[in-house]
Amino acid sequence: MSVLQAINPNVRNMKPLEYSILARQASRINEELRQGVKKPYQEVLDVYSGDPHKGGVKPLSYVRQVLAACLYPQLVNSSKLPVDVKQTAQRLLGGCDGGSVGSYTATMGIPEIVHKVSEFITRRDAGVPSYPENICISPGSQWSLSNILHILLNAESSPRNGVLSPVPCHNTTPMSVTGLGAVVIPYYLSEEQGWELQVGELHRALESAKGVCKPVALYIINPGNPTGHVQSRKSMQEVIRFVSEKKLFLLADEVYQEYVFGEKSEFVSYKRVLSEMGPPFSDTVELASFHSVSKGLPGECGLRCGYVELVNMDPTVMKYIFTRFSIDTCTPVLGQIALDLMVDPPQPGDPSYPLYHMEKQNISNTLIDNAKRAVEVVNSLPGLCCQPLEGGTFAFPRVYLPPSFIQKAKEVGLEPDTFYCSRLLEEAGLLISPGFEYGQKEGTYHIRFCIMTSAETLEEVLRRLTCFHTQFMKDFS
Amino acid sequence: MSVLQAINPNVRNMKPLEYSILARQASRINEELRQGVKKPYQEVLDVYSGDPHKGGVKPLSYVRQVLAACLYPQLVNSSKLPVDVKQTAQRLLGGCDGGSVGSYTATMGIPEIVHKVSEFITRRDAGVPSYPENICISPGSQWSLSNILHILLNAESSPRNGVLSPVPCHNTTPMSVTGLGAVVIPYYLSEEQGWELQVGELHRALESAKGVCKPVALYIINPGNPTGHVQSRKSMQEVIRFVSEKKLFLLADEVYQEYVFGEKSEFVSYKRVLSEMGPPFSDTVELASFHSVSKGLPGECGLRCGYVELVNMDPTVMKYIFTRFSIDTCTPVLGQIALDLMVDPPQPGDPSYPLYHMEKQNISNTLIDNAKRAVEVVNSLPGLCCQPLEGGTFAFPRVYLPPSFIQKAKEVGLEPDTFYCSRLLEEAGLLISPGFEYGQKEGTYHIRFCIMTSAETLEEVLRRLTCFHTQFMKDFS
Repeated sequence: MSVLQAINPNVRNMKPLEYSILARQASRINEELRQGVKKPYQEVLDVYSGDPHKGGVKPLSYVRQVLAACLYPQLVNSSKLPVDVKQTAQRLLGGCDGGSVGSYTATMGIPEIVHKVSEFITRRDAGVPSYPENICISPGSQWSLSNILHILLNAESSPRNGVLSPVPCHNTTPMSVTGLGAVVIPYYLSEEQGWELQVGELHRALESAKGVCKPVALYIINPGNPTGHVQSRKSMQEVIRFVSEKKLFLLADEVYQEYVFGEKSEFVSYKRVLSEMGPPFSDTVELASFHSVSKGLPGECGLRCGYVELVNMDPTVMKYIFTRFSIDTCTPVLGQIALDLMVDPPQPGDPSYPLYHMEKQNISNTLIDNAKRAVEVVNSLPGLCCQPLEGGTFAFPRVYLPPSFIQKAKEVGLEPDTFYCSRLLEEAGLLISPGFEYGQKEGTYHIRFCIMTSAETLEEVLRRLTCFHTQFMKDFS
Repeated sequence: MSVLQAINPNVRNMKPLEYSILARQASRINEELRQGVKKPYQEVLDVYSGDPHKGGVKPLSYVRQVLAACLYPQLVNSSKLPVDVKQTAQRLLGGCDGGSVGSYTATMGIPEIVHKVSEFITRRDAGVPSYPENICISPGSQWSLSNILHILLNAESSPRNGVLSPVPCHNTTPMSVTGLGAVVIPYYLSEEQGWELQVGELHRALESAKGVCKPVALYIINPGNPTGHVQSRKSMQEVIRFVSEKKLFLLADEVYQEYVFGEKSEFVSYKRVLSEMGPPFSDTVELASFHSVSKGLPGECGLRCGYVELVNMDPTVMKYIFTRFSIDTCTPVLGQIALDLMVDPPQPGDPSYPLYHMEKQNISNTLIDNAKRAVEVVNSLPGLCCQPLEGGTFAFPRVYLPPSFIQKAKEVGLEPDTFYCSRLLEEAGLLISPGFEYGQKEGTYHIRFCIMTSAETLEEVLRRLTCFHTQFMKDFS
């Protein structure tokens, strides 16, 4: 027996990332550039993933100073660090066993930080109470999502369990569902209505699952990735009525909650809407809400930390969650510390406040400007069309590919939008992702790129896209 | 439907950690102490887990300096850091996208660090080649172990898949196996022979699985946790012949490889033994070998990083491993950097070498002294008996509990050794773990405590244990 024969069929069913095709191509190009091969660009520009620091956004000084002081406490004696940085580092080290960030922590996170998270949520939700015992800190939101799915989904159920999941959707959640032996039930977001979620479509999707699987959960991303749509309160109320009626667990991926910039948009959490709707909804609908340090203001993707808050969860189930989570021991301690700093930032009057505030405003203003600029430039190009961006950190325009190009893509054995991205990468040195990765209505094609970058990076992205696309349309029209 | 009814039965079968009982008790005691309740100790001493920094071992200065400099590069300009720290930090940041430890990395790890790991393995194994494409960096060794089990084990197989797993064994691996719907097939280590692994017992265990499950893998921990045993080359050769004959995948947990101190013991990797045995073994036996930053010299458990090397794995399977691993995006970047420093430490002549060398020698000498001292003191106490310690970071003595005490434990509904640990915690303020957590032959009882602590911590552990146990034997004899 070789492993190849024995491999878990659920893992075999997981759709591998297209990324590897384009990533290998990017590596090859970078290698050619190093060897002096002449190309119309100096290096590959990579806005494939939502990675602010890679895109030229500067880390928050306060976060980095506190983390460095926690790692090497001798620094605390250096006069160069602001006094509140020193105090915060000392407080945080007080919560670490042996005063070291190198010690394990409680499985669900350092208790003081869990408390801070619950206070943050209560403030965010205008007083709707949040309880520390319902919060689990985790190494990123996708980690907790896939572990909660592991608890929720029964690999041996017949018919299989199903999870309603949006199309388009970033790829890791559907991969987790498939890998656990359950079925992804796609519901389509409405592109023409700015990628709105329509409850009629949820009903259609649920109906389509009959005879195929037993739906147990609904997964929602708000603000949307890759869509950039922000749900209205009314739409959220409709969703809550739907999951209540259909007895579905609600998985609310709210990691982009800090990035809402549409003129009429505001972020409201599912927990708050649920609470405001009152009984029977507020005390029966089971909800998990996710947030993270990667997608929050610090943009510290490399530290790997997030949290999940569970609502209306039976305390007995929390025991299983604890058991499942305990296999990985604990969340990286420096990530937990960054989470503390995210939910409890410097306040007016603190020595670090002026610099922190300025850096925060810069990030926020740049994102607003980038979103406007991206939509404007993309929509000025023939054959590209981007819905208004209201939140999140991505643009996801539709690309109308000429039939002759689609034919050519088939000949080389690539999805048409993957082929488009591959040509864009080769000719303009720009690495973005194809809509195929996220799912899309048949016969439509899209591209996704990160707009959470410095203004200079975004300009260069748009310049390369414009150059390539203009020539592309000439070549294929 | 509430989740309680729908919960995955495999997760329901996972044995929850006893830790929570003792941890809650310790929290309660600490709270009482804070409130001024008088006890024969000032605070709870916790040597439950293998957590060097918690036990008073100082972090390696070089590791912390480089990490701090990577986090806050302005530090690199400070004259207080040695020049090689600055150079190393700059080199490592060069491998991070956007020059930031806050960016995502490749799923399998930063390529330069993966290369370093393969060079380290080649040196360790006296030239047996290691290839970067077979190495995956992961957030801790248990994370990669449970993800590889997810690929290997088929939750829908009938009969179920089985994994041969030692008794005693630290608890996370059996939990992972159960949570994935497979069966743990226990094989007993021979306490009287210093916790030796005997191949006859592997045959017996395999035989016992007939009609119950289909064995697919053998899990081994060498050096042992909790046993402290180090396998001989001869024993490893026998194991390799066994897995080859029985067509089992070999999971070699070798995270304690840097801690071998028995007079006649030496660490030899399974990969090296496999290579030295030549064909057919060397090119057919499928092997995964695990190591980590937590259990290696840095003892940086809180950073969450390890790696797995796969041997004789079909390249097609590597694709599935990549897909499965990619759900969690990447390993914490600061953990990856600590891994780089672990496999490529300062060399003679480097400015940081003298301090690094001294700290390393201190850690190593303290562990050797602690191991001797722990065995000596434990074996001087009536009713306690510890096998010689040859490696690892734990002592796992047998405790002969009086029948009247066992009766009393039954009355309070606790396992006898859990009850012993609970009394020890209450009366002497010492938190250690019961043998029940790790599995043990019926009718035998054990305790486990970490010896990877400062000399002062270990003395205090032994003092509290001696005081309590002496009184305990008086009370119950």
